[in-house]
Amino acid sequence: VKVAAIGGGGWGTALASVLSKKGHEVSLWVYEADLATRLKATRENDIYLPGVKLPPAVAVTTSLRESVAGAEMILFVTPSHVLRATAARLADEAPAAFAVAPLVVVATKGLEKESLARMSEVLAATLPAPAGRDAVVLAGPSHAEEVARQIPTAIVAACRDRARAEAVQEACSTEWFRIYTNDDVVGVELGVSLKNVVAIAAGISDGLGFGDSTKAALLTRGLAEIARLGRALGARPDTMAGLAGMGDLIATATSRHSRNRRLGEAVGRGANLAEALAASPMVAEGVGTCEAAVELARRHGVELPIAEQVHAILFEGKSARAALRELLTRDLKPEAESRVRRES
Amino acid sequence: VKVAAIGGGGWGTALASVLSKKGHEVSLWVYEADLATRLKATRENDIYLPGVKLPPAVAVTTSLRESVAGAEMILFVTPSHVLRATAARLADEAPAAFAVAPLVVVATKGLEKESLARMSEVLAATLPAPAGRDAVVLAGPSHAEEVARQIPTAIVAACRDRARAEAVQEACSTEWFRIYTNDDVVGVELGVSLKNVVAIAAGISDGLGFGDSTKAALLTRGLAEIARLGRALGARPDTMAGLAGMGDLIATATSRHSRNRRLGEAVGRGANLAEALAASPMVAEGVGTCEAAVELARRHGVELPIAEQVHAILFEGKSARAALRELLTRDLKPEAESRVRRES
Repeated sequence: VKVAAIGGGGWGTALASVLSKKGHEVSLWVYEADLATRLKATRENDIYLPGVKLPPAVAVTTSLRESVAGAEMILFVTPSHVLRATAARLADEAPAAFAVAPLVVVATKGLEKESLARMSEVLAATLPAPAGRDAVVLAGPSHAEEVARQIPTAIVAACRDRARAEAVQEACSTEWFRIYTNDDVVGVELGVSLKNVVAIAAGISDGLGFGDSTKAALLTRGLAEIARLGRALGARPDTMAGLAGMGDLIATATSRHSRNRRLGEAVGRGANLAEALAASPMVAEGVGTCEAAVELARRHGVELPIAEQVHAILFEGKSARAALRELLTRDLKPEAESRVRRES
Repeated sequence: VKVAAIGGGGWGTALASVLSKKGHEVSLWVYEADLATRLKATRENDIYLPGVKLPPAVAVTTSLRESVAGAEMILFVTPSHVLRATAARLADEAPAAFAVAPLVVVATKGLEKESLARMSEVLAATLPAPAGRDAVVLAGPSHAEEVARQIPTAIVAACRDRARAEAVQEACSTEWFRIYTNDDVVGVELGVSLKNVVAIAAGISDGLGFGDSTKAALLTRGLAEIARLGRALGARPDTMAGLAGMGDLIATATSRHSRNRRLGEAVGRGANLAEALAASPMVAEGVGTCEAAVELARRHGVELPIAEQVHAILFEGKSARAALRELLTRDLKPEAESRVRRES
């Protein structure tokens, strides 16, 4: 299969590598011209995935039109805040690519700050129909660094159209990179996006010197609040118990690989948002998603105690210690009631 | 309140410390005479909780009768394999302690290998009625090392009788040690026991050099299999989404403090069970619980793929790598179906 991977961050580079090793003809579109030049010369993405060799067969280009020429699968894997602009530019520069109805896949996670849209919604609104409709969401507990090293990983391909999800499963699965299908697109996208906000909270807890049990309690409540917003938006509860919910939350909030957890840790140690962001060239998706989630929850009348405290810390100057204290010393209630009490 | 803490392991020592600092009159019963002597002299439990000072007000004794004299709350916190014998000896040596109907609390986790009983069932069968009935289960995501250092922790007090759970909540909660009540005793005990088996699997994954995403996928499936056995035994699904299910699983399987995870790590690196057990004086509850869980699941017609593979590794000489490979490369199916497929 001819595949265009749109986005040369760590995850795009890792996915291009997996697909190429599986025998697909892969073209990787890279935004930064200097990075593309070095990537062609050294086969190493020295900004976003240092230490990993890109297979020789992966073509690297900065031309969107070139990357999608003849592509049967187009995989979007840009940062969330540039997905809309990139997809619009692609539709404009290479309309022919969509005439043949390629399989559109999106591995970008997050909620768009302005529109509050999920990434598959952004593509549906931006790409020509029917290709932009029913993009397959490819996401779950994974780290580019691990996938590139063939460490066993299991994620999800989600689409309302089961045949499309199965096509992605078939195209991308390897023995150690397992893909399970799911038809709950809303649940999968909310799970993998909102987990980044909870991972920031978990990082803050780490940065304040709290423990493994503190973090476990935060993650338990975090998944409950993600599920609560999910229910309001039509997600299935069992999705949150699966790879895109609990799985991705654990993989992100407990890993040294997670940019969002690390950003939270810096904030917990006293950095402000600008300082914490400056520490890495990678995008911490949880920051924008936090703003979107708090607004989305407000519109739907759902309260998200953790996302609200993360918002207060990142954007309203609230002390990290005071915010975590509020979260961790809430009124003592029966457990189930405590998890849902804000709904009533 | 006068409290007898029966068991001087790490968790018993930490709980005695919390209760004493809260102003209760605490007597800590220690099995090992030499440890009791040193604990009285140095106020440090140098075997099970080194580096932590026991408050001066905690009385240390090796006499069961002395420890429970006048106790209004009796807290059992022995290893699971000696709970029955210890409770029987206590009932025999100090029958008067049960005449006044003390509040019985059990912080021991595990399933008894021979009877497959939960710890509250062991007490119900062993202590004089009515004291032994409806013991309050005190458990959840916590590490003795962290609780002793006043690191924020949230756990559960579970009892069918809400008033008893609330009495324990009131007696034990502090600002940083939060206790939530729950009336699903079966779910809480199964969650906090079986998580040790999954934590061994997570440790094996670590020992084999697998990644954070590998572990996240294992934990997601692990909680699904705990919930599956729980359903068969009458537990509520929402308990598994709470502190005693997901919370305790994360706290155990991702922490350097967990004896069960560390045992699994040693096995993943090539040690056999005897070698891995010899590495620490602490009891790894997951080993016995694994045997009980596999038998319990067989009797109820539930399959537990992770517990079964851990059993095969620990007791049947199966290679850790081969077992994890089987777990991680199962047939590709829709995700929800994959989580429940063994039930059909």
